[in-house]
Amino acid sequence: MVKLVALYRTPDDVAAFDKHYDEVHTPLVRKYPGLRSLEVTRVTGAPIGDSKYHLLAELSWDDRATMEAALASPEGKAVARDLMSFAAQYATIFFGEVRP
Amino acid sequence: MVKLVALYRTPDDVAAFDKHYDEVHTPLVRKYPGLRSLEVTRVTGAPIGDSKYHLLAELSWDDRATMEAALASPEGKAVARDLMSFAAQYATIFFGEVRP
Repeated sequence: MVKLVALYRTPDDVAAFDKHYDEVHTPLVRKYPGLRSLEVTRVTGAPIGDSKYHLLAELSWDDRATMEAALASPEGKAVARDLMSFAAQYATIFFGEVRP
Repeated sequence: MVKLVALYRTPDDVAAFDKHYDEVHTPLVRKYPGLRSLEVTRVTGAPIGDSKYHLLAELSWDDRATMEAALASPEGKAVARDLMSFAAQYATIFFGEVRP
């Protein structure tokens, strides 16, 4: 299994961010071809001090080729466009392989 | 479900890090009381440029009280001690609640 991980720093306006994330971004994410799962974790704290993060989103596909096809698809481009419109300054994106 | 997320930047010596992570750290992590799952993702890249991250580890418990008890247990303290010994400069740790 492979993942796209999106880690969001705490935005300036949390309520506006959450509204856009839930009402606009998540429905677009769910249209990724071949998406196996979407798991969203709301950050609640850190062992010492406050966490600078707000959300962790993990999108899974069966394999790398399927993920790359999804990212290159029209639906994938719509997700990327939307991300840039509301969270470009907050998001860190990376890809990974889940260890067995 | 709640999670402890450990995100590791790429260490200076990847081979030494991986060896310690697999042979020493992971066996300690698996002793956390009440641990529901451990999922480790090896970072393979980023959409633009290289990712600065190497590993994402996610530890899950059924609820916050169980996680906090695990962190405060002798086994939890052993994990924290070991983390500080080999990855203090690479690890970012935060807690979160998985959205339904």
